[in-house]
Amino acid sequence: MAGVDYLADERNKAEFDVDSMKIVWAGSRHTFEVADRISKLVANDPAFRKDDRPMLPRKELFKNTLRKAAYAWKRIIELRLTEEEASKLRFFVDEPAYTDLHWGMFVPALKGQCTDEQQSKWLPLAYKMQIIGCYAQTELGHGSNVQGLETTATFDPQTDEFVIHSPTLTSSKWWPGGLGKASTHAVVYARLITDGKDHGVHGFIVQLRSMEDHKPLPGITVGDIGMKFGNGAYNTMDNGVLTFDHVRIPRDQMMMRVSQVTREGKYKQSDVPRQLVYGTMVYVRQQIVADASCALSKAVCIATRYSAVRRQFGSQNGGPETQVIDYKTQQNRLFPLLASAYAFRFVGEWLKWLYTDVTQRLAANDFSTLPEAHACTAGLKSLTTTATADGIEECRKLCGGHGYLCTSGLPELFAVYVPACTYEGDNVVLLLQVARFLMKTVSQIGSGKQPVGTIAYMGRVEHLLKSRCSVQRAEDWLNPSQVLEAFEARATRMSVSCGQNLSKFSNPEEGFAELSADLVEAAVAHCQLIVVSKFLEKLQQDIPGEGVKQLLQAVCGIYYLSLLHKHQGDFLATSYITPKQAALASDQLRALYSKVRPNAIALVDSFNYTDHFLGSILGCYDGNVYPKLYEAAKKDPLNDTVVPDGYHEYLKPLLKQQLHSAKL
Amino acid sequence: MAGVDYLADERNKAEFDVDSMKIVWAGSRHTFEVADRISKLVANDPAFRKDDRPMLPRKELFKNTLRKAAYAWKRIIELRLTEEEASKLRFFVDEPAYTDLHWGMFVPALKGQCTDEQQSKWLPLAYKMQIIGCYAQTELGHGSNVQGLETTATFDPQTDEFVIHSPTLTSSKWWPGGLGKASTHAVVYARLITDGKDHGVHGFIVQLRSMEDHKPLPGITVGDIGMKFGNGAYNTMDNGVLTFDHVRIPRDQMMMRVSQVTREGKYKQSDVPRQLVYGTMVYVRQQIVADASCALSKAVCIATRYSAVRRQFGSQNGGPETQVIDYKTQQNRLFPLLASAYAFRFVGEWLKWLYTDVTQRLAANDFSTLPEAHACTAGLKSLTTTATADGIEECRKLCGGHGYLCTSGLPELFAVYVPACTYEGDNVVLLLQVARFLMKTVSQIGSGKQPVGTIAYMGRVEHLLKSRCSVQRAEDWLNPSQVLEAFEARATRMSVSCGQNLSKFSNPEEGFAELSADLVEAAVAHCQLIVVSKFLEKLQQDIPGEGVKQLLQAVCGIYYLSLLHKHQGDFLATSYITPKQAALASDQLRALYSKVRPNAIALVDSFNYTDHFLGSILGCYDGNVYPKLYEAAKKDPLNDTVVPDGYHEYLKPLLKQQLHSAKL
Ligand SMILES: Cc1cc2nc3c(=O)[nH]c(=O)nc-3n(C[C@H](O)[C@H](O)[C@H](O)COP(=O)(O)OP(=O)(O)OC[C@H]3O[C@@H](n4cnc5c(N)ncnc54)[C@H](O)[C@@H]3O)c2cc1C
Ligand SMILES: Cc1cc2nc3c(=O)[nH]c(=O)nc-3n(C[C@H](O)[C@H](O)[C@H](O)COP(=O)(O)OP(=O)(O)OC[C@H]3O[C@@H](n4cnc5c(N)ncnc54)[C@H](O)[C@@H]3O)c2cc1C
Ligand SMILES: [Ca+2]
Repeated sequence: MAGVDYLADERNKAEFDVDSMKIVWAGSRHTFEVADRISKLVANDPAFRKDDRPMLPRKELFKNTLRKAAYAWKRIIELRLTEEEASKLRFFVDEPAYTDLHWGMFVPALKGQCTDEQQSKWLPLAYKMQIIGCYAQTELGHGSNVQGLETTATFDPQTDEFVIHSPTLTSSKWWPGGLGKASTHAVVYARLITDGKDHGVHGFIVQLRSMEDHKPLPGITVGDIGMKFGNGAYNTMDNGVLTFDHVRIPRDQMMMRVSQVTREGKYKQSDVPRQLVYGTMVYVRQQIVADASCALSKAVCIATRYSAVRRQFGSQNGGPETQVIDYKTQQNRLFPLLASAYAFRFVGEWLKWLYTDVTQRLAANDFSTLPEAHACTAGLKSLTTTATADGIEECRKLCGGHGYLCTSGLPELFAVYVPACTYEGDNVVLLLQVARFLMKTVSQIGSGKQPVGTIAYMGRVEHLLKSRCSVQRAEDWLNPSQVLEAFEARATRMSVSCGQNLSKFSNPEEGFAELSADLVEAAVAHCQLIVVSKFLEKLQQDIPGEGVKQLLQAVCGIYYLSLLHKHQGDFLATSYITPKQAALASDQLRALYSKVRPNAIALVDSFNYTDHFLGSILGCYDGNVYPKLYEAAKKDPLNDTVVPDGYHEYLKPLLKQQLHSAKL
Repeated sequence: MAGVDYLADERNKAEFDVDSMKIVWAGSRHTFEVADRISKLVANDPAFRKDDRPMLPRKELFKNTLRKAAYAWKRIIELRLTEEEASKLRFFVDEPAYTDLHWGMFVPALKGQCTDEQQSKWLPLAYKMQIIGCYAQTELGHGSNVQGLETTATFDPQTDEFVIHSPTLTSSKWWPGGLGKASTHAVVYARLITDGKDHGVHGFIVQLRSMEDHKPLPGITVGDIGMKFGNGAYNTMDNGVLTFDHVRIPRDQMMMRVSQVTREGKYKQSDVPRQLVYGTMVYVRQQIVADASCALSKAVCIATRYSAVRRQFGSQNGGPETQVIDYKTQQNRLFPLLASAYAFRFVGEWLKWLYTDVTQRLAANDFSTLPEAHACTAGLKSLTTTATADGIEECRKLCGGHGYLCTSGLPELFAVYVPACTYEGDNVVLLLQVARFLMKTVSQIGSGKQPVGTIAYMGRVEHLLKSRCSVQRAEDWLNPSQVLEAFEARATRMSVSCGQNLSKFSNPEEGFAELSADLVEAAVAHCQLIVVSKFLEKLQQDIPGEGVKQLLQAVCGIYYLSLLHKHQGDFLATSYITPKQAALASDQLRALYSKVRPNAIALVDSFNYTDHFLGSILGCYDGNVYPKLYEAAKKDPLNDTVVPDGYHEYLKPLLKQQLHSAKL
């Protein structure tokens, strides 16, 4: 039966041009072509096999990752891949590795925080991987509060060196990826101390291991922090622990772009504005949003295909049972996630633009949009990663029992993804930052200062506070301006109401703390509005391909109407909509499910994922799930023997009532 | 520093008597004493060590579980433990094993579905573990829809035997725990066929493996289905796959309590009522609800203690930072889960009573309360397992980065728990059953038939449809009858509204399918009402111990007010409460957080969990988290060597730019 496509019927139902949708999803024909080519290259190379990952014990797993990373680098060189292609290759290898931190954090930190002179020394080494770097900020006792880090870097004017030291157990660096076993160097954040004065946290380049034999240098104690959530998953990464015992580095290994220490030990600011760091932050966060859409779309692709394969109940006269994707409850759980994957893709694309915009403004010394860009990226990072983590687990549940098997791919996808809710800013801490920005904006209403960018709607606060939703029929909920106003009104009202409640406190900080749960909800409302508005903006553009735009309109409708239903309480409490209008929204949502249903498989085919990248039997392209599950089961080590190891020692004596004399 | 209690300050703050609360949590002094004694026995026995679980590869992990199960049985015999004590011992060993299915499913199936004669043959063997049994219902292609199973049991009158056969790949038994490697016998569900006629699915006792050498008997192919979610976790269990090739069993191995096949091959019902099976179902589900409160309370205990240890931000003048448990956002995520753990405990206790009640009624041929009991247990199973699975993951996130480490205990707790949302009835499928019951009740309104038990409130439908919430001040939300009416009104209105919408469809089945997402929400509202009302009822009782009842009142308030806030949309859409009243509920909720805060550690101490049972460094009793994390990290196999395996083959050639000649 090789080659039979069990989902062919589903594919034939599609009412839009899948090839065009693939381009839309990829962002451009060029991006599509690179991704398509590189993903196939990886998928067809047995050296990149990953289905054995859940079965490997830690040491073998890690060694295998070292092999893949080296092999990937070898291929990158052999094939003379461009930077874009190389990064796509690492992406499709789909295995967390020290190289992620080297390219994703170490190199950007060097670029963002080193002087030109420093860059010309370190970057060539890093680019050729003659050194491997990691990003060592978090400590055992200090994560979210970076200003509370305890590691010290004390300037010694005698020798023109910094002395890096870990004064306490809690000051041990703890978590940095690539630190445990692989890195030769680290960007280390430590309190800069000159002449007895603490200048706060600064970054330093520290060599950790000998370039000869990879042994830790004197004064450095380093190791792996142990197993993390899940089989395979993030255990391919050597998150590490590191303590310094008075380790000396030359003065020029402080990253001196923004502030410097002179030969005499004088601390001073350079003329490069501090705000520059925000550029890197926007860059990293837009990457995280892009990754969210990728992880969520993988999970959705698996659950959607399997929901079309899986049949349960409803057989008439011995005919086939109903495909579970036809159940409205299944659609009601699955399609909003499908829609979210698209929504996050488009808001991610827009964030790329924002990054360019911010960079250009910074270059022109224009810092006016920074607070807004900062709040917006913080909020979108939080929103998309939380929704993605929850969404992956929901997709797993949508697959019933079989979703619990490692071969479904979903357990590993979940386990490897969830820390995105914590790293690069704990999601709740980030929402509190957004809330601060919102409260600041609210407090400036009427001051003449016009809110810009994603918060511009607050400029229409008067209108938004008094208007009422004018929806009368279910279809009215397809009107973009109606929808936008509903989300704007909800966000505005929640922020304004928080602002009013805050003003009742004599101590604003106390008020903020006391009301922080409400403030977080207001922040979520603001962030959801951004995603909805960027999706609607996307649909204003020309989108080629038969039926493509129509389908995206339905998908967008599912996104905002499912949000509206989920947060119905907000919309009703702020009295912008009536219960009747909320019910009409639900009616329209159901109608959109029916619209999307025949296109569901084609919508996930549009992600253009290879079976290798998906790594899921339940999600395999041809839908031939059951024989593959059966074959895969045989490979479990437990099946090496028919009678299990331990039968003679433990099972037999128990069954034969001879436990009293058994050695246990 | 051994023996220092880092949480002593927190413990001193408690405003209630912890020892009394421990009794309340356990259910009785007797239950407390048994649990306390047995949990310490397990904790103090190094043979039951479990912290190495995440590091063990599958085969070793499984072998180790065989050892523990045998050792546990040995101890049970040596110590002459009672049935209650033995089951507590297995519980505190805290490792999924074939024995769970043997005692939890195989033995109850024999008891519930075998004739007295059959029971007297099989039960003694099972009680002594001279045979090991599992429960083989689910197939590769058939789970929720049990009536769709494909395995056949065809009666052969010539030999007076049944021929058990797997006609297709999808008919392979798939998932049964204990089947893969350990069981000697199984209760197998198969379509009974006599004389060419299909009588639907029935249960059969089938021997799988030789009692001599444990090899599968002729015609039986059996093995393990492979790795499941998580490290350690459910991988200690040998969930299995099984196919039959015309396997013959004697006629008397059909479980014949309810229906029988005679020597002549005639199929007939016995005089024992079919409804008896519901008794077992109520029993199994009350156990699942009890397990939910246990799993959730473990997670909450870990997150609460760690939130008191963890400090982040807010340091003044170099003093200590703020304990994260003092942040209102942290409380707003954590305390409702703490409250849920208590709520589920009490509703679980009530379900035990319900089981007794149902059993007595069945014995008296009174089936009148069965539909209600069935709906209620289905709904509570769904509600509590969903909330627990989500709650464990939220607790993990509440621990920031460190929650992602296996040593936090939370990843394994999550991975081992989540299938409870799927087995014993997929949670959505169960809610749809509840919804059917609700719609039936609604359709009978006015027919004179009085709804009983947990649905009795529907008898007051007229009042509940027209009444309005009379809360005027935040404290009014502490009034139990106000609260109860709010939850009753919400549930009633959602059900009635669904009923009205259904009546617009000419085909009721079509209507049910189309509106199923709304119906599921109505079912959730009904189930939440049950939990709230049982908590409130509990508080009507005499509860001894200083401050205990007061604290439980606060905890109960947090439970229902956080639900009210989360589902504010329902309450507002049904117009029972106003936005202003919803806001007052939030105010009261915040006040209750402050009330509970100083008691938080004592409230989780009341669970009386040993450090062994918790299995979490972050949750350890003494709060001495950091040194323990540091020591535990050293034990990872990756730290066996300073320079990792694979350095010479993969890292060195990369760093030295010699990959071209490296063998990868
Ligand atoms: C897989 C993984 C990889 C990582 N990689 C790196 C790396 O390469 N380099 C590196 O330096 N670090 C790394 N980290 C560390 C990561 O950056 C931190 O875990 C993250 O910053 C969160 O900090 P924390 O763990 O201290 O959480 P905490 O701040 O301790 O959070 C604990 C709880 O407190 C709450 N909380 C904290 N502050 C507040 C507040 N002010 N108000 C309200 N609530 C609050 C949080 O919401 C959370 O619920 C990694 C972590 C993980 C899990
Ligand atoms: C860890 C574990 C242990 C187990 N142990 C055992 C055991 O010991 N013995 C045994 O016999 N079985 C066992 N099982 C199997 C378990 O009972 C089934 O997985 C469970 O009944 C769910 O069925 P399913 O997997 O077929 O899910 P499916 O029914 O295929 O569910 C897939 C999706 O379809 C949806 N769906 C299905 N029907 C409907 C409907 N009518 N309307 C709307 N939506 C629907 C579900 O909600 C779900 O989202 C175990 C499973 C697990 C995960
Ligand atoms: Ca809601």
